[in-house]
This record gives sequence, C-alpha cells and structure tokens, in this order.
Amino acid sequence: MTFLKNAWYAAGWEEDLSGDPIARTFLNEPVVLFRDSTGAAVALADRCPHRFAPLSLGKVEGDAIRCPYHGLVFDKGGACVRNPHGKGARPSSLSVRTYPLLTQNGMIWIWMGDKELAGGSRPPAYDFLTDNEHKTLHGSLHVRANYELVTDNLLDLSHAEFLHPFIMPEGVASTIKYSCLVEGDTIGAIHEMPDQDNTPLFRLLMPDVRRIDGRANNFWRAPANMYLDVGMRELDSGERRDCAIPQVHLLTPETEFSTHYFWAAARLLAKDDQRVDDAILAGFSNAFENEDEPMIRAVQERMGGVNLFELDPALLPMDEASVRARRELARLIRNEQESAAG
Amino acid sequence: MTFLKNAWYAAGWEEDLSGDPIARTFLNEPVVLFRDSTGAAVALADRCPHRFAPLSLGKVEGDAIRCPYHGLVFDKGGACVRNPHGKGARPSSLSVRTYPLLTQNGMIWIWMGDKELAGGSRPPAYDFLTDNEHKTLHGSLHVRANYELVTDNLLDLSHAEFLHPFIMPEGVASTIKYSCLVEGDTIGAIHEMPDQDNTPLFRLLMPDVRRIDGRANNFWRAPANMYLDVGMRELDSGERRDCAIPQVHLLTPETEFSTHYFWAAARLLAKDDQRVDDAILAGFSNAFENEDEPMIRAVQERMGGVNLFELDPALLPMDEASVRARRELARLIRNEQESAAG
Amino acid sequence: MTFLKNAWYAAGWEEDLSGDPIARTFLNEPVVLFRDSTGAAVALADRCPHRFAPLSLGKVEGDAIRCPYHGLVFDKGGACVRNPHGKGARPSSLSVRTYPLLTQNGMIWIWMGDKELAGGSRPPAYDFLTDNEHKTLHGSLHVRANYELVTDNLLDLSHAEFLHPFIMPEGVASTIKYSCLVEGDTIGAIHEMPDQDNTPLFRLLMPDVRRIDGRANNFWRAPANMYLDVGMRELDSGERRDCAIPQVHLLTPETEFSTHYFWAAARLLAKDDQRVDDAILAGFSNAFENEDEPMIRAVQERMGGVNLFELDPALLPMDEASVRARRELARLIRNEQESAAG
Repeated sequence: MTFLKNAWYAAGWEEDLSGDPIARTFLNEPVVLFRDSTGAAVALADRCPHRFAPLSLGKVEGDAIRCPYHGLVFDKGGACVRNPHGKGARPSSLSVRTYPLLTQNGMIWIWMGDKELAGGSRPPAYDFLTDNEHKTLHGSLHVRANYELVTDNLLDLSHAEFLHPFIMPEGVASTIKYSCLVEGDTIGAIHEMPDQDNTPLFRLLMPDVRRIDGRANNFWRAPANMYLDVGMRELDSGERRDCAIPQVHLLTPETEFSTHYFWAAARLLAKDDQRVDDAILAGFSNAFENEDEPMIRAVQERMGGVNLFELDPALLPMDEASVRARRELARLIRNEQESAAG
Repeated sequence: MTFLKNAWYAAGWEEDLSGDPIARTFLNEPVVLFRDSTGAAVALADRCPHRFAPLSLGKVEGDAIRCPYHGLVFDKGGACVRNPHGKGARPSSLSVRTYPLLTQNGMIWIWMGDKELAGGSRPPAYDFLTDNEHKTLHGSLHVRANYELVTDNLLDLSHAEFLHPFIMPEGVASTIKYSCLVEGDTIGAIHEMPDQDNTPLFRLLMPDVRRIDGRANNFWRAPANMYLDVGMRELDSGERRDCAIPQVHLLTPETEFSTHYFWAAARLLAKDDQRVDDAILAGFSNAFENEDEPMIRAVQERMGGVNLFELDPALLPMDEASVRARRELARLIRNEQESAAG
Repeated sequence: MTFLKNAWYAAGWEEDLSGDPIARTFLNEPVVLFRDSTGAAVALADRCPHRFAPLSLGKVEGDAIRCPYHGLVFDKGGACVRNPHGKGARPSSLSVRTYPLLTQNGMIWIWMGDKELAGGSRPPAYDFLTDNEHKTLHGSLHVRANYELVTDNLLDLSHAEFLHPFIMPEGVASTIKYSCLVEGDTIGAIHEMPDQDNTPLFRLLMPDVRRIDGRANNFWRAPANMYLDVGMRELDSGERRDCAIPQVHLLTPETEFSTHYFWAAARLLAKDDQRVDDAILAGFSNAFENEDEPMIRAVQERMGGVNLFELDPALLPMDEASVRARRELARLIRNEQESAAG
C-alpha cells in the first residue's frame, strides 16, 4: 500500500497534546507527539536512533524529550542535545526525524512527506470550527479498516437510513436526490431530501418544526478530509428558516488497515444548551463508533485487501463521488511516486 | 490448500436455521444461511456485491434478505429485488452467489462447487437418525485444526482408551482387533473388542450386563462423512442381546485450519429416559470438546501445516483406514482439479 | 534466522524438572523435559513420531513417557518401548529425537545441535552458584524479544540509571568509566563507578557504608551466557571492604522473537537474612520483568526484525561490548553453517 505522503494529515485535536508524550502511528510510521515548555507542538520519529526505544515512553524535559532506555535527550529539532554517558559524545547520526506540524481550526496537522514541500501547502481551512459564532463539539475514534472505506462511507450518506436512525428516519433513502459535484480539487456528494419529517437530530435545535427540506452535502479533498454540511430548511412557515450542523470528518491512515478518525460538529442555535451538547455528542459518537465502525470493519474483513476495484463492486449512482475520490487520490499518489522516481 | 468442491457438506442441523440469518464459513467462503417465509433454507454468499457488507448482519424480509449497509434486498435466487435508492436501478451485476442446499436426515447440506453438478449427487443417507424407531441426540463443535486430522482421529478409535475413559476402559486398546474394509466408495475402520467388561457408556442402556463383545466400526465417505456403529453384544446370558449407539460424524472444513464438526447418536433402548439423554449428551460433548478437540488442535500446532505425509509419520497398522481415506480424498481432489483444467 | 546450534543452552533450573513433564521450546524446536524414576533429567522432541501429539501432555511412567493420544511409550533414549495396540509392533521409525542434557551449577543445560559434538564441549562453569560459601537466589522470566536484544541490554549497564533506580541512582551514568575487554572467547563490558553514594542494593548488605567505588562487569560468552560481577568497595574507612553480588544471566532463544532468561545472584554477606533474600528477589524480579522486559520488547517492536546493523543504529562508546558480541556470535554461526555445508 502506498499513501499520499506530501499532504497535511489530521494528527490530533489541540487538547490531545501536552507535556506528556503520546505515541501515534501515521501512514505506518510511529510518531511521538508532545508540547515543549512554550506549549509548541512537536512531532518526532518515535524511535531512538541509538537503540530504537520508543521516545514516547520517555519524559519531556523542557523543550526536549529524554529516551527512556539510555537517557539520550532530543530537542524539537530532532538533535541530540544531551548524552549523559562518558564524554557525552553526540555524533551527527544521533538525531531523530522531525515532522512538520501546524495548528489550524483546533486541529494539529502533520506532514509525513518531504519536508521541503510542506511550506508551500496548507490543510483545508475549516474556520467555522473556531470562529466566535459557532458552538463546536468534537471527538475522535479508531477504525479498524482502510481509510478509503471510511471515505466511501461518508461520500454516500444514503446508508444513514439503514445504520443511523437518529440521523435519518426510515424511508428517506428513497427520496434522496443525489448528485456529484466536482469543483477544483473538491469532490462534492450532494444529498437533497425535500419535504420530509423533521429528524431527531434537528428536533434538538428546532423542536417545533414538523416538515423540512433536508440536506447532507459532503465536500471531499484529498487525501481524506471532508466538510459536511448537514442542514435543513423548515417548510412549516413561510419563514423558511435554515438550520445547519456543519461538520468536518478528517481521516488519517494509521496503517493500511486502520484509521484515525477525527470529527467536529458546529451549530449556531441552542449554543448554551448542555442537553443539546450531550445529545449531539452521544448521538454522533454512537453513530460513528457503534454503527459505522463495526460495519466498515466488517466490510474490510469481507474484502480482505484494500483494492476496491479489483473486487469488481456493483456500483450504483450514489457511488459516484466516492469512486471519483478514489480515482483522484490514486492519480495524486501515482503522480507523487513518479515525481519521486523521476 | 485445496478442498473437494463438488460434494455435499454438512452445513448445520435443521434447527440451526431460522428467520434470523447466521454467518458460517465453509471451505474458506463466507456464507449467510436463513429460512425464508415458507421455511425453506437459503444459502447466499455472505458479501453484498455492492460494497461487500456481510448480509448476515442484515435482516430477513419475507423471502429475501436486506443488506445492513445500504438496504439492498436479495431474494433466495441471489437477485437484487429492491434497491431503495434513487430510481431503484438494479443492474444485473447486483446479484449474489447462491449455494444449493438440501435437507436430509435432520441435516442441512450445502454444495460449494459447480452448481450444475449438484443435482446428480446426494449426500450419504443416514436414515436411522430420523426414522420413527430411534431416539436421536445431536450436537456440534468447532475444531481449531484441519478437518483431515479429525477424520484421522475418528478412523482410529484406539485412542479412546487414552483420551476417553467414559467410552473405553483401561487395557482395551491392546485387545482391539483392527481391520480396514474398503467397499465401493466407503472405507471402514473395524474395531472389534471381544470379551471385555461392559463400558460406562453401555451400562447406561444395559446396566446389568457385565461382559460384552464390543465394537466400533466407522465407515468413511469422502470428503469427511462417517457412519459409526458403536455397539456391544452381551456375553452374560445365552440371549446374546445386541445394543448399539449408531452415530454420524460429519466434518466440514471452515478454513484450512478449522472445522465444523457435527455429530449425532441414536439408540433403541431407554428412549424416554432423560437421564440417559443427559449422560450421552454430557459424555459425548465432553469427549469431543474437552478430550478430542484440544488433542487434535495440539497435533495441528505441532504439525504446523496440513500435509501429514510430508512430515513422515511413523504409521502403525491401525492407521490403515485413515491413510486410505487421505489417499482417496487426495485422488478425488486431483481428479476434480484436472476436470476443471481440462 | 539461524541460531548457533552446537552449544549448551540453559534449559531450566534443577527444580524446574520433575516427574511431571514440561514443554519448552528452544531454538524453535519443541522439547519435553522430565525426570525419570532415578531422577535423571530427560529431553525429547515434544512431538510423537506417530501422529505428532505433544508428549508433554502425556504421563511419565517409570523411566519413560507415554504419549497422551495413542499411548505409545518412549524411553529416555527416544525408543518406543511399548505399543499398546495390536501385536505391539515397534518399527524403528517409531523413535523420537533425544537432546543431550547436563546439570552444572544448578542449571540443566541442553544441546540442540549435532549430538556427536556435545561430548567435547562444556557450558561455562559458574561454580560460585553452588559452592558452600555463597548464598544463591535465582529466577527466570520470558522475554518477548530476540535474545540478542537482551544481551545488548546486559552488556551496556548504563541503562540502569534510567530504568532501575533500585540498582543505580540518578546521575551515576555520567560517572561510569566504561571499557571493553576481550580475552579468549570472553567479551567483558567493564563499568567502573568511582566514588559514589552507596546504592539501595548494597545498603542491604552494608547499610552503614556511605561512599563506594562501584562496579558492574559483565563477561559474555557465546551464544548468550553472562557472568556479571556487581560489586562495591567501601570508601568510608581505610578498611576498603569489598562486597559483591556476583550473578549469571543465561539466555536461550525460544523463537526468533522470544527468549528464556535465567538469572542467579549470590552473596557472602547476610546469608541467613530472609529480609535480604526477599529484597534481592523482589528488586531483581521487578527490574528484569517490569523494567527491562517491557523496554526490550518495545525495542523489538520498533525494530520489526532482528538485524540490528541493517537498521543503522547510532552506536556510542558503551555499545562496544555488545557490538563485539554480536559480531563474534555471527562469526560462530557462519562457521557452523560452513562446516555443516562443507
């Protein structure tokens, strides 16, 4: 399996990092993440260059991290700044790979590819997550499946009727007007659900509304970052009020067969209502962890490998966006490999 | 590993199937089994052709099963009869493989090979299991070993003295008169045990008998179905009464290294005695699950692979039937492969 | 992976063996160990030559062991001495490999290679373990890592400051005078720690001493047997008393990725003090099992394979002994293979 290397990947929510180092694997590479004394986020290869102990089992000392095995200390630039043995020799080989990080919209992003290319690139901006208008909730989960299967899941939301009764009531799937929209580097999966009953989800925010035009429009950008506009427009009154729970779904491959899944959901209504917070957190966590994850994992098990097209799936119109996204990602990976080879 | 494909395999006892689908793997292929609204047994590939979700996680609706992921509905012929999305397109690629089933003697049998060849073939008849004369008990277990190792176990019952005190008392092994009988497609392992003490097993049925001629004659047919005549003839009186607990032992490979093991045991005496039922069920379950299975699994672990002859076993006279059965099965598999290639 | 075959390996402490057979794997080969009726230790291949059941699940009968599956009995020479079936045929193929054993210094040693070469070789003598002067404690553990990583751990004891506060107080690593000494077939890792505070370990034996010259000198012999002289010389008084806890650390590969680790620690002081026994046993067990083992295992996981040099480690002066030991072992294995091939 080859991943797209030269891309920003979601590594963790801001609060995931502290002065206690954590170990996370991205694209098959073990990484240690921590904050230095200034609070700056640091990412290093989680393998001491001396004897290959995981630095994540060590301790952060000021701006550096100390290996738990022989006490070598590495700074955030990856250089060994202290060898507590003998004359303290620090040969240049005694250094550890660093990974560029940046923080944007509450997320810490990591660059797993060629460092020289990181500067010219930014992750997608999801400013609504951290503006002053929205109330935002977020979470994360671990999926035991290839990340593209999670993308597939999110680019065809017609599954919601069958997996997520909290989100989509029975009978709605057949009313979805599906279309695929390609604009620049974005592939959109448009789901319009005209004239339906208000959903349990939106009754949290607009309890009195009975009939709505629903929508769930998911905008993918490579490798696996999605902005999902879930919303409704009320039909009861002429006011035609709009209400939305805009979301992000950010996927980072851990290994070929496992995925870090980060999500956030924002809203403008009922921002101070703790019961709404609780219901959204519980409802979304349940949907993603107990409904989606087991299904995606079961699909992975049935597939065996990760190459969808080799298995000759019987594709339907609602697969258009995910098929396009898979093809675009394959093209980017191929280009990257050819650039590396050329 | 290659299995014999064109053969009927035991898939489950009749009561194993209901309107709730179950997942079973046979010969490495995942299968979903259920009963339709008429009670007819259905077997389909347990993988939706759309996105490869296990249909066994779905729901039976009338005569069909609904995929749990996107709600596609497949009938017992494997055709998609409902697509709840958009215009409900049902391209011909949207179909799932079916497996022929037939019910005989309480067992549901499945055909994993070329469907065209199923009609001309029947599984072995074991009519005593379902006649009106016998009382029959049955069970099943899962063995973490290749199925041919279970066949080996059953075609040389001299192991019973060492593993199964309930079935064969100490010292009996040395008195067994063993012979191998080949008749048509059947290979028999004949164990005669003349003039011995009555066993705990047969004291259940003939408690007053002290001395017996015992027998345990196992008749194998490919791929791994056995009729086992376990019996005794009393020696105490001139009446020479006979008493038997005729059995079947039906093995179906799950994977190369695991086996579905179905067994049944019938009798003509003490048919309404619940204590005898309980003792036979408990004794046999214990023998197969707690005595045989761990030993066969340990053998599998020590062997590593599945090719017995490559490991150059030191074979003894009592291995004759199992060696013949292995050779016959290998011949059938070779023939089948040559037919397929030719 | 290739192991050095023609060598004595530590198989178990004397008390590990009894009339109840135990299963241990050495160099990837399953072995059954037991004592016969005379108390002599026996080692046989743990796989019956008939049907490959583990003999270790069987029973010792007098001087022989009975296979649990079909009751064949094998004596300590590996010959089948009883076949309880039919005419009791015992073809010559019905024999099992024996492994030479010898007992020395409380340890049972096993020879996994060419039996003809065993006689001309002895394991290293560690007579202090079983003389009448020392009090000796010993233990064993299982390490989920390649045995050479455990050797690496033991030939560079500078890690003790970071992993083992009971053994080496903070700040000592930087004071270690390290040197590597090669003498005949022995490679020594010399750690001198002049003029330091007495350690928790040696306060057990010399509680009043405040300042010491410490030492920890480890003498390796292939494949992975070490004599470790851990000691101190008091500096408080002109008496300059010496105190030592001489040790052995004996490693035997179980598989490529797991190791049997046997250790013993002796002393001349406080020999009858149970509290000292308890403290040494608890301290050492904790250090090896809870501090070393998880770290060595984590290193193994980060390395993936077992070839250290392929991963291009950034070696430091204190790695000299372990690097020399790895090279010497590789040379011996290469020689052995060339001899076998030639």
